[in-house]
Amino acid sequence: MATVAFIGLGVMGYPMAGHLKTRGGHELRVYNRTAAKAEKWVGEFGGTACATPSDAATGADFVFTCVGNDDDLRQVTLGPDGALSGMKPGAILIDNTTASAEVARELEAAAKAKDLGFLDAPVSGGQAGAENGVLTVMVGGEETTFDRAKPVIEAYARMVGLMGPAGAGQLTKMINQICIAGLVQGLAEGIHFGRKAGLDIEKVVEVISKGAAGSWQMENRHKTMNAGKYDFGFAVDWMRKDLDIVLSEARRNGARLPVTALVDQFYADIQAMGGNRWDTSSLLARLEK
Amino acid sequence: MATVAFIGLGVMGYPMAGHLKTRGGHELRVYNRTAAKAEKWVGEFGGTACATPSDAATGADFVFTCVGNDDDLRQVTLGPDGALSGMKPGAILIDNTTASAEVARELEAAAKAKDLGFLDAPVSGGQAGAENGVLTVMVGGEETTFDRAKPVIEAYARMVGLMGPAGAGQLTKMINQICIAGLVQGLAEGIHFGRKAGLDIEKVVEVISKGAAGSWQMENRHKTMNAGKYDFGFAVDWMRKDLDIVLSEARRNGARLPVTALVDQFYADIQAMGGNRWDTSSLLARLEK
Repeated sequence: MATVAFIGLGVMGYPMAGHLKTRGGHELRVYNRTAAKAEKWVGEFGGTACATPSDAATGADFVFTCVGNDDDLRQVTLGPDGALSGMKPGAILIDNTTASAEVARELEAAAKAKDLGFLDAPVSGGQAGAENGVLTVMVGGEETTFDRAKPVIEAYARMVGLMGPAGAGQLTKMINQICIAGLVQGLAEGIHFGRKAGLDIEKVVEVISKGAAGSWQMENRHKTMNAGKYDFGFAVDWMRKDLDIVLSEARRNGARLPVTALVDQFYADIQAMGGNRWDTSSLLARLEK
Repeated sequence: MATVAFIGLGVMGYPMAGHLKTRGGHELRVYNRTAAKAEKWVGEFGGTACATPSDAATGADFVFTCVGNDDDLRQVTLGPDGALSGMKPGAILIDNTTASAEVARELEAAAKAKDLGFLDAPVSGGQAGAENGVLTVMVGGEETTFDRAKPVIEAYARMVGLMGPAGAGQLTKMINQICIAGLVQGLAEGIHFGRKAGLDIEKVVEVISKGAAGSWQMENRHKTMNAGKYDFGFAVDWMRKDLDIVLSEARRNGARLPVTALVDQFYADIQAMGGNRWDTSSLLARLEK
């Protein structure tokens, strides 16, 4: 049992912190920008609601962050009341935000200067994965740091993999989003074509889903797509944020991502349709508008 | 046990006809444009090599065709020495060619006029699926015809589904190819990005392949893609033929297929690189050229 701080009780962080308390059995100190959320969390799980990230991090062995983007992350870690100012030597900062590889390397350097450990640890599995504690966690950092943190992370994860040095977790998450972008658009075009052709989409998926066209998205999204249901899941706004990180990194490393860039623009079309909160699979709605 | 004609002993038809003989236990009459191939087949499996499609179809209860494209198909069925001229009333023509939905409807009409049954029955599963007799068969046609033919088709299939009226098998195969086009390009961009980022692709796939980015293509192609190995599998030339059928049909039914059309052009780039016979997964080679 350790003392664990959790900073950022959003749609992902709230249940993740819950698993650290209930499954992990740790002592939790939580912080959220909107304080009422932290109070609510403490009401549900116990632990201590703190006034600043620095307060939450004070005395903690492990400090988790799960916030919106690079800037939010810098603020809650490096800012005046940021976590780093409260952390004790030897403690480990674990960032679950989907952020840039750049900020991960920046945070590792800042952590090292204070004798702290750092891991970038973005997750996949969505809100349902967070609630059920079965997330996939893609980690970047040093192996000794990883070995110490892994048993703690496992409270909310089904799979925890060390992908390489700091930033490698973020880069792996980027690959995940790149693969999804092309895949979901292909699936959307397939279903769209099938509907135009008057086929029974359920029957089509039953026949083709075990073969070379098969995917998690086909299995898990064809029904909702065919029903035009998008009020759930991983929102278009979040996907665009992730693809912005992806395309910036590709500008640096020289990777060519023609379809990823095009699908990012398709998501911009969906935002213009008012679909900011629709699931990623709403690429079909765009084809059928 | 029935008398079965098989017309077109190519890379797919040769082993499929073999399964009709060995697993199905049928009497086989075979025809191939290059007669030596039919002689070879008869040397291996027995049965009768015939001089024309019409000869092969004479006396057969079921006539299978598996040729290159719409024009080849019209020639071996409707041409002067075509199968229809030899078939007996009540016999069933089963076409395994990946062809247009249009030619399927045309063949059904021609078959009906002669009191014959017709099924369009394109397959997926590739050369390995044909050799192992585990193809997926997507069938269009009438239910009574389907019910009679299904036990015969099962000699080379793992899954045989009736998708709707004549043409529905072809339309389902088109959806399969549409989904694959976007999916493989997304996967290629993901692997390409991962290599540029210096990640271990094996490790990345191990971590992300069970989640929302997962697919048959990721599981079965990432190793060969990462090794730059493309001298196997479903060739770029064949994929372009299929995508031509898809895009023509989309012109008719009004479906919007922006990524499918773009990926078709990427395959044209690969042909220009000399990759006509490379596997479909060679989209990665194009990104890395």
